[in-house]
Amino acid sequence: MTETPPTDFASDNHAGVHPDVMAAIAAANVGSAPAYGGDPWTEAFQERVRAEFGEDAEGFPVFNGAGANMVGLAPALGRYDAIICAGTAHIATHEAGAPERLLGVKLITVSTSDGKLTPVDITSRLGGLGNHHESQPRVVSISQSSELGTCYTPDEVAALAAASHAHGLLLHMDGARIANAAAYLGTSLRSFTTDAGVDILSFGGTKNGALAAEAVIVLSPALTPTIPFLRRQSLQLASKMRFISAQLTALLTDKLWHANADHANAMATRLADGIADLPGVSITYPVQSNAVFAALPQAAVPVLRERFVFHTWDASARVVRLVTAFNTAPDDVDAFIAATREAVKGDVSRETI
Amino acid sequence: MTETPPTDFASDNHAGVHPDVMAAIAAANVGSAPAYGGDPWTEAFQERVRAEFGEDAEGFPVFNGAGANMVGLAPALGRYDAIICAGTAHIATHEAGAPERLLGVKLITVSTSDGKLTPVDITSRLGGLGNHHESQPRVVSISQSSELGTCYTPDEVAALAAASHAHGLLLHMDGARIANAAAYLGTSLRSFTTDAGVDILSFGGTKNGALAAEAVIVLSPALTPTIPFLRRQSLQLASKMRFISAQLTALLTDKLWHANADHANAMATRLADGIADLPGVSITYPVQSNAVFAALPQAAVPVLRERFVFHTWDASARVVRLVTAFNTAPDDVDAFIAATREAVKGDVSRETI
Amino acid sequence: MTETPPTDFASDNHAGVHPDVMAAIAAANVGSAPAYGGDPWTEAFQERVRAEFGEDAEGFPVFNGAGANMVGLAPALGRYDAIICAGTAHIATHEAGAPERLLGVKLITVSTSDGKLTPVDITSRLGGLGNHHESQPRVVSISQSSELGTCYTPDEVAALAAASHAHGLLLHMDGARIANAAAYLGTSLRSFTTDAGVDILSFGGTKNGALAAEAVIVLSPALTPTIPFLRRQSLQLASKMRFISAQLTALLTDKLWHANADHANAMATRLADGIADLPGVSITYPVQSNAVFAALPQAAVPVLRERFVFHTWDASARVVRLVTAFNTAPDDVDAFIAATREAVKGDVSRETI
Amino acid sequence: MTETPPTDFASDNHAGVHPDVMAAIAAANVGSAPAYGGDPWTEAFQERVRAEFGEDAEGFPVFNGAGANMVGLAPALGRYDAIICAGTAHIATHEAGAPERLLGVKLITVSTSDGKLTPVDITSRLGGLGNHHESQPRVVSISQSSELGTCYTPDEVAALAAASHAHGLLLHMDGARIANAAAYLGTSLRSFTTDAGVDILSFGGTKNGALAAEAVIVLSPALTPTIPFLRRQSLQLASKMRFISAQLTALLTDKLWHANADHANAMATRLADGIADLPGVSITYPVQSNAVFAALPQAAVPVLRERFVFHTWDASARVVRLVTAFNTAPDDVDAFIAATREAVKGDVSRETI
Repeated sequence: MTETPPTDFASDNHAGVHPDVMAAIAAANVGSAPAYGGDPWTEAFQERVRAEFGEDAEGFPVFNGAGANMVGLAPALGRYDAIICAGTAHIATHEAGAPERLLGVKLITVSTSDGKLTPVDITSRLGGLGNHHESQPRVVSISQSSELGTCYTPDEVAALAAASHAHGLLLHMDGARIANAAAYLGTSLRSFTTDAGVDILSFGGTKNGALAAEAVIVLSPALTPTIPFLRRQSLQLASKMRFISAQLTALLTDKLWHANADHANAMATRLADGIADLPGVSITYPVQSNAVFAALPQAAVPVLRERFVFHTWDASARVVRLVTAFNTAPDDVDAFIAATREAVKGDVSRETI
Repeated sequence: MTETPPTDFASDNHAGVHPDVMAAIAAANVGSAPAYGGDPWTEAFQERVRAEFGEDAEGFPVFNGAGANMVGLAPALGRYDAIICAGTAHIATHEAGAPERLLGVKLITVSTSDGKLTPVDITSRLGGLGNHHESQPRVVSISQSSELGTCYTPDEVAALAAASHAHGLLLHMDGARIANAAAYLGTSLRSFTTDAGVDILSFGGTKNGALAAEAVIVLSPALTPTIPFLRRQSLQLASKMRFISAQLTALLTDKLWHANADHANAMATRLADGIADLPGVSITYPVQSNAVFAALPQAAVPVLRERFVFHTWDASARVVRLVTAFNTAPDDVDAFIAATREAVKGDVSRETI
Repeated sequence: MTETPPTDFASDNHAGVHPDVMAAIAAANVGSAPAYGGDPWTEAFQERVRAEFGEDAEGFPVFNGAGANMVGLAPALGRYDAIICAGTAHIATHEAGAPERLLGVKLITVSTSDGKLTPVDITSRLGGLGNHHESQPRVVSISQSSELGTCYTPDEVAALAAASHAHGLLLHMDGARIANAAAYLGTSLRSFTTDAGVDILSFGGTKNGALAAEAVIVLSPALTPTIPFLRRQSLQLASKMRFISAQLTALLTDKLWHANADHANAMATRLADGIADLPGVSITYPVQSNAVFAALPQAAVPVLRERFVFHTWDASARVVRLVTAFNTAPDDVDAFIAATREAVKGDVSRETI
Repeated sequence: MTETPPTDFASDNHAGVHPDVMAAIAAANVGSAPAYGGDPWTEAFQERVRAEFGEDAEGFPVFNGAGANMVGLAPALGRYDAIICAGTAHIATHEAGAPERLLGVKLITVSTSDGKLTPVDITSRLGGLGNHHESQPRVVSISQSSELGTCYTPDEVAALAAASHAHGLLLHMDGARIANAAAYLGTSLRSFTTDAGVDILSFGGTKNGALAAEAVIVLSPALTPTIPFLRRQSLQLASKMRFISAQLTALLTDKLWHANADHANAMATRLADGIADLPGVSITYPVQSNAVFAALPQAAVPVLRERFVFHTWDASARVVRLVTAFNTAPDDVDAFIAATREAVKGDVSRETI
C-alpha cells in the first residue's frame, strides 16, 4: 500500500525468521522421521540443552511462550495452589486467563517498580500457608528479562530461589527473552538458571529469531516425568517436531542466540541513548534488554506514528514501548531518534511524568 | 475443661441454631417427601422468595456460602472471563481458590479503604474488554454487608449496577450477611437487591441462625435455567432438601431474619461504643453490621484472650475482629467492655495506628 | 391433597431423619463452638471413625455423597489421569459431569452385568499407561453397595485392591449405602474397607437416616493432608460442622447404622420375595441391599403408580427400581406385594425380559 | 545407522513438508509484519477460506489438530455439557484427556463398527436432556475421514446435522484428514461441511503436507466472536502467524491439498489391493482415504517390521495400520506388497479374524 512501510518497533514478534533458522528448517525436510520427538533433530536439541544447562537438564520443545509457561508451571501446582508473580508478569496480564482456566490456580500478583520480585515479596505472602481457607503459594514465577525490560542478576535469582525453596516453593522462570537477558548480563544461560536454583524454565526462541519455537527446560529432574503428558494434554505437542527442534538447535548453534540478542540489545540502547536527553522525553525503566519504555511529549506521539509502529504502554503517563529485534537496522533507529528530535521541538511544556 | 468457657466473639459461625429454625427442621421430619426440591417445604421457600424479592425471583437452596457464590457466579461467566471484586472479598481471600479452580476465571481485585467498590473501580478496569490477550470482566461481585462490616446503601448498589450493566457486566451480591445489612439500613431486602439492579444474590442463612442453609437467588430470570445443573454439578444439591428449605423459610417467617440481625447489630454497636473512647483503642471501620474491627493496645490482647475468643485481623496493626450473633448476650458484651477498660489501663503509650 | 399419600419406594432419600439423629442435632445446639470442625462433636466423630476403621483412619464430614466422592477422589488424581469405574457408577451417571469439570479427569467406564467390577476389568484397561497421548488410569472406584443393589464380598474388594495397587492405582469406594452392604454381608465396616485395601472411602449417612451428612474417610494416611484444602475448595466445608458431625456420630453409636440398614434390607428382601414368583415378574439383580430391580408386566406399572411412588429404571425392559429405607413399614411392603399380585392378574403374556 | 532406513507407513505425521509449503514459508519471511494475525498472509488465508467454505466462513489458524479441536469445541460447550462421539474418535482416545481437563466436559462415546456415527447414535443418547443430574449433550463430533479411514458421504453428514440440530446440538467435524476425505469422495470441501450443516470444523494441514498448520473454521457465524479469546487462552495463538497462514494458503492454492490427498489415497488403495487377496490377510475396514487396516498372519509382522515402520492397531486381532502420505513412493508400496507376499508364504493356517 504505502511506498515505504512504517518502521516497526512494536514487538520482536513482528520480526521475521533469522536466515540460519530458516535454513535449518529446510534442512530438516529430508525423508520421513518419527513424530512427536523421536527424531534426530530433537535429540540434537537435547544435547544442546545439556551443554547449556547441565547434564540433568531436559528440554521439551513447544509451540509458543504461553504454552511453555503453562506446561512448565503445571507439574509444580496442585488443585489449591497459587503462583506468586509480578503484577506485570505476562502470565498475569496477557495470557487470557490461561493460568486460572488451564491450571486452575490463583495468581498472587505483586506490585513492583521495575517488574522484578525481591525475596521479601515472596516471604511476605506466605501467611496463608497451611490455612485451608486460602490458596497455597507453591511456585514463584519471574520473567527474565522482565516485561519492563529489566534483568535479574544471577545473585538476585539465587536469592529468590533460596527464599522460595526455604518455604517449599519452586522457582519458575519465564524466559521468553532469556537470550536478551544473558547477552545484557554478559553471562552464560546457566549462570542465572541452573546455577542459581531455577527449577523450571520457559526458553524462548521465537522472539530471538525463530519461526515458532520455545521449550520447557526442566532443571529439577523430579518434575521431568510429568512433562510429556502435560505437553500433550496442553496442546503443545508438535507432531512433526523435528521442525521445531531444528529451530531451537539453530539458535543454540555457534551462539546464534547470543548474537541475535546482542544486536537487539544494542539497538535498544542506541535508541534510548539517542532520545533520553531530548526535551520532554524520559526513559521510564533501565534499558537492560531490547525494550525501551519512554515517556514522550503528548504532541510527539501522533507525529511519530506516521512513520513508525509502536505500542502505547501507559496512555495516561504518555509512555510508549519501543522494541528492537535481531534484525533492527541501525539506520531505522537513527531515523527514529531524528524524528523524535524533530517532533519534540514544539514541546514547550517539557513536562515529564 | 474450663468451668466457665470463654465468651465467643470469633464468628457468627460459632453461634448455634436459632430455636425457631431448629423447630422448623424437626417439623419437616414427617413422612416421606420427594428428594432434590420437589417437596412442599421448598415450594414454601419459593413463595417467601417471591414475596421478598419480587415475582421474577427464584431461589435455590444450597449448603453453604461458598457454594452459593460459586453456583451463582457460574452462569454469568464464560471460559475467559473475570470477576471484579474488592481485595477483601470472601471469594478472593477465603474460598481456597474456588473461583479459579471451579469457575476457571480470574479475579480482578480492587484495593479499597472500607471493603466497598465504587463505580470507578469498575470502569477503570475495563480497558482490556475486547482484547483477546486479556481476561474479560463479566461480573462485578460485591459483599453486603462487606467483609469489613460496612454496608452499601441502595443508591450505592444501584450506581454499581448501572456501571456494570452499561458495559455488559452483571452484578453479583455475596449476601452471607445480607440480613445484617438490611437491618442496619432499615430497608427491605429488595431495596438494595431487586430494586437496585442486582442480577444474582447469595442469600445467607447460616450466620443468621440457621444450621446450614443458604440460597442462590436469581433476580435476572435469563440466568435461571442453568442453576439446577450448576447446583448439582457443584455439589450443592441436597437430597433431603426439605430440611434446608425449612430453615430458610423459618428465617423468612415473621421477619425472624430481621430480629436476629437487629440483635446482632445492636450488640456490635454496643461493643464498639463501649470501647471506642478507651485509651489506645480505635475503631477501624464504621460499625454498620455485626462486626467490630478495633485496634487495641498491644498488651491488652493477650489479657483479653484469657476470657474471650476472637480473631486477629491484622497483626501488624494490632487490629482484632469482634463478631456478634443473634444470640450474643448483652452481659457478655458488657463484660468485654469492662475487661478492655481494665486491660488498657496499663497502656501508657496510648498509641493507635 | 390426597387423603392417603402414595407409599414411597422411590428412594431412600425420600425418607426423613431417624429420631435419634434428630435428637443428636438438637443436643448439639448448646452454646458456641468453633467453626469448621474444631469442636467436640467432630472430635467424637473422629473417635468413632478410628474405632470402626482403625487407628490410621481419619474422617472428614461433608454435606453430600457427590461431595464426598469429589473430595475423596481428588487427592489421588493428577491433571492427566483417569478413573476406572462401572458404567453404572453414580459418579459416571448422576453427578452431572462433576468428575470431568471439578476433577478434570476422564472416566473409563466398564460395562458390567451386575454393577460390580472384577480385577480383569482393571488390568485390561491399563494398556495406555505410560503413553503420553492417553489419560492415565490412577484410581479404581467401586460402589458398595452398587447402584444395582449388589455387594462386593471382602475377598472381592481385596482382589480389586490388589489388582489396583499392583499397577500403582488406588482403590476408592463410594459407600453411599455402605451400611446396607455391611448389614447384608454380616461383617464389620472395616472388613471390606480398611482390611481389604481400600484407600479412600465415601461414607454415607444421609440414605441411612441422617439429614445431610456424609464423610470422606481416608484409609491411606498419605492422602490425608490434602483433604482439608480440597474439602474447603470443593464447597464441602460446613461452618457449623458440629451439626454434621453429630449426625454421623449418632449413626455410629450403638450400631444405629446397622439397625437402620438391616431393616431396610429386610424390607427389600420381603418385597422381592413377595413378587418374584408372580406371573410376568422377574427380579433383575440379586437383592443384596435395600433395592429391588424388577421387570413388571407392562400393564401393571400404571396401576401400581396410582398408589406407590417408584422410578422406572429401564423403560424398554419394563424394569422398575424399588428402594426401601430405615423406616419402611412392613405393611407398606405387603400392600405393594398385594397390589402387584392384583395388577399382574390380567397379564396374559407372562412375558419377562 | 542403517544403510537403508526402513520405509515408513507409520503415520502421515512422519512425512516431511511439501516443497510448495516450504517455499511459501520462506516467501513469507520478508520484512516485519503485525503479530497475531494482522498480516497479509493471514488475510490471504481468509480469502481462501471464504472461497472454499462460503462467505460466512471464518478461519483461525492454530498449531495442531488437538488445538483446533479444543478451540473449536469450546464455544459450543457450557460447564455441564457433553460431546457425543465415536469411541474411536481422536478426542476420546489420543488427546490425553484434553476434553475433560481443558473443556471440563464429558465424552459420551459410541461403539461403532467403522468409526462413523449414525443419527440414531445421537438420538438414542439424549434421554438425559433436561435432567439436572446428568451431563447435557450439546455437541456431536465426527471425524472426516474417520480414525478407521472411512468417510461420511455428504448425505450422511447432512443427516447427522439434522439429527443434531433438531435437538439443539451442534455438529463439529474433526477434519485432521479432511483433504483425504474430499479427494476420496470426489467432492468439494464445502459439500460435506458448509452445505451439509456442519457448524464448526477442524481443518487439517499438517498431515496433508504442512509443517505445523491447522485451522478452526467456523461455519455458524454466531460462534465466531469467542474464537479469538479461546484460541489465545488455549495456547494456540501463533505470534508470527504469517508463517502458519502461509502454509494453509499454500495448500489451498491450485488445489495442492487435493493433489496431496489424492496421491496418498491412491497409494493406500494400491497397497490394500496388493495384499487383500494374499493368504491370511484381510482388510479390516473399507479403504476410503490414506489408511489401510489389515489383519496379517502372526508370523508375517515381525518379518515386515525389519524393513517397514508401521503401527500395531489391535494386537489381539493382529491388525496393523498402514498410512500413506503425499510423498509415499509407489515403489515403496510395491516393495511392501512384495514383502508381504513373501512373508505370508509360510502361513499355513490362513486364518483371519
